[in-house]
Amino acid sequence: MANREYTVAVVGATGAVGQQMLKYLDERNFPVKELRPLASKRSAGQTITFRGEEVVVEEATPESFAGVDFALFSAGGGVSKVLAPEAAKRGAVVIDNSNAFRMDPEVPLVVPEVNPEAAKNHKGIIANPNCSTIQMVVALKPLYDRYGIERVIVSTYQAVSGAGWQAIHELEQQTKASLNGDEVTASVLPVGKLDRHYQMAFNVIPQVDVAEENGFTLEEMKMVRETKKIFADDSIGVTATCVRVPVFRGHSESVYVELKSDFELDEVRALLSEMPGIVVQDDIAGQIYPMPLHSADRTEVFVGRLRRDLNHPRGLNLWVVSDNLLKGAATNAIQIAEVLIENER
Amino acid sequence: MANREYTVAVVGATGAVGQQMLKYLDERNFPVKELRPLASKRSAGQTITFRGEEVVVEEATPESFAGVDFALFSAGGGVSKVLAPEAAKRGAVVIDNSNAFRMDPEVPLVVPEVNPEAAKNHKGIIANPNCSTIQMVVALKPLYDRYGIERVIVSTYQAVSGAGWQAIHELEQQTKASLNGDEVTASVLPVGKLDRHYQMAFNVIPQVDVAEENGFTLEEMKMVRETKKIFADDSIGVTATCVRVPVFRGHSESVYVELKSDFELDEVRALLSEMPGIVVQDDIAGQIYPMPLHSADRTEVFVGRLRRDLNHPRGLNLWVVSDNLLKGAATNAIQIAEVLIENER
Repeated sequence: MANREYTVAVVGATGAVGQQMLKYLDERNFPVKELRPLASKRSAGQTITFRGEEVVVEEATPESFAGVDFALFSAGGGVSKVLAPEAAKRGAVVIDNSNAFRMDPEVPLVVPEVNPEAAKNHKGIIANPNCSTIQMVVALKPLYDRYGIERVIVSTYQAVSGAGWQAIHELEQQTKASLNGDEVTASVLPVGKLDRHYQMAFNVIPQVDVAEENGFTLEEMKMVRETKKIFADDSIGVTATCVRVPVFRGHSESVYVELKSDFELDEVRALLSEMPGIVVQDDIAGQIYPMPLHSADRTEVFVGRLRRDLNHPRGLNLWVVSDNLLKGAATNAIQIAEVLIENER
Repeated sequence: MANREYTVAVVGATGAVGQQMLKYLDERNFPVKELRPLASKRSAGQTITFRGEEVVVEEATPESFAGVDFALFSAGGGVSKVLAPEAAKRGAVVIDNSNAFRMDPEVPLVVPEVNPEAAKNHKGIIANPNCSTIQMVVALKPLYDRYGIERVIVSTYQAVSGAGWQAIHELEQQTKASLNGDEVTASVLPVGKLDRHYQMAFNVIPQVDVAEENGFTLEEMKMVRETKKIFADDSIGVTATCVRVPVFRGHSESVYVELKSDFELDEVRALLSEMPGIVVQDDIAGQIYPMPLHSADRTEVFVGRLRRDLNHPRGLNLWVVSDNLLKGAATNAIQIAEVLIENER
């Protein structure tokens, strides 16, 4: 079985995350027998390069998934809702990067460093969590195992690439216009489909995704709900404030954790350092800490600014940074596929 | 007394905050009899325009303060330490925007909306709090009075202008270079006098000011210590994570407050709305919330994203934005002078 190779479909292959999936499948030496880059009708006909060969992007239809082993979806919730069940029906295992199935009790929500065992119980679809959730739960995992987690208070500093190419392009255009003293226009952020759009260049926007009834945004509630589901523990309290900043790539998070038992900071640092997928950069005196610019194009989760709360004996502050397109999306999705391959053996 | 006019010295008149002091003295119709713009030897000889007249900037020396009523200092802690006592000795009331005297038990630390009575007990020097503290305590004041505050967990999104003209210029240059694909150099942020400098353009830097022994930065500890001093209440717990973002003007803060008694969100909104100096912008469904771009050149503190913590019954999330050069510095300093004038009457 070790030499088995797989037919892999990437849905949304021309998108910001899809492009990283192709790059990462290559770099990771994922055992690809055949690659099927799929996209909307509009993007079909474009070519992408994979392992030195040009491959034509085809329109994603139910028939596209015949003979596919892994179907990596990153083309938005609407596409996933329609096509993921079609892919699963044809025998593919879908790994879906959209929000469509994450809270479906039938669908595992998997971060390989945290709950790889959940992947076993899939019924054809596995959900990839939200980018801001993934990096946080990786950082929380060793703390959860050792001390237990009472609650988390998190504020995010999210890059625009989470909103796709259009948002990346918009930040670039707005920044140029602003520096030139030209009129700045906005049509993508904070949420493309909503009425109001605000300048992102040299600004901070405290809205990522649509509002929910309770005054939180969907992005904030994703962090609340997905954290509970990934740890399979509804007792973890999460309150989140999700904010977009003028950064192209790399989400940062100021995470405050209240642990269930006492801790020593040195032990926390050691636990994080030993955790696969985490790089500790924690030396404020030496000016060493994670930053999005340095985490771009890296697959790990970077953790630093470890500080004991001055008031609460079990309170701990962390600063967590990761590339939202990689560990926050493409890398995690492909790692899930690797877990499934490993399980086959 | 109502028609009395004052001789006002502005120390650091050519700096980012000093310029706003001059602008605000003018706009606010502050009763200026004579303006003395002062600066370092290097900047002396430049002219500034005040109320339509050109005034030559002079070098700040002890003798500059003879006959001065109010001396507004914003030229760094070193200058304040040397010259503020000299100004006070000559009968001026110093309002100092540096960190030099803030924690001095002999020096009141004043935010006029919060503790105006503290200004009465000065001995010639009054300290203006740190920018990130000012906007937070204004937002907390009505909550403190009504419910009491157990503790605060705050993460900041701070503009570069807090680090002066050089930092403003650096962000601009770096952004241009980055967009042009040119080499990006850094020599100012996060802290000019430290060894390492990092790119601010399209990045997030989790360090504002130097490190302290306990792993927090000085900026973070300013928020802790100054909040307790302004409320004259050592029982308020504050834990802070202070972060610089690529924004020219306007600090944003994600503030989590644990109140001492139960609250209703509507009452919180009403209390904040009634507070002088606060503008509530709180309608996530309508995409209304504070943003630094819209708060620049405004003197108020903007508050929104009011949300009850989903786990803690007395937990409340706020999003607080204000112009760090105005309410965070120049405006607050001049409002302190106005409190003193009012007290004279």
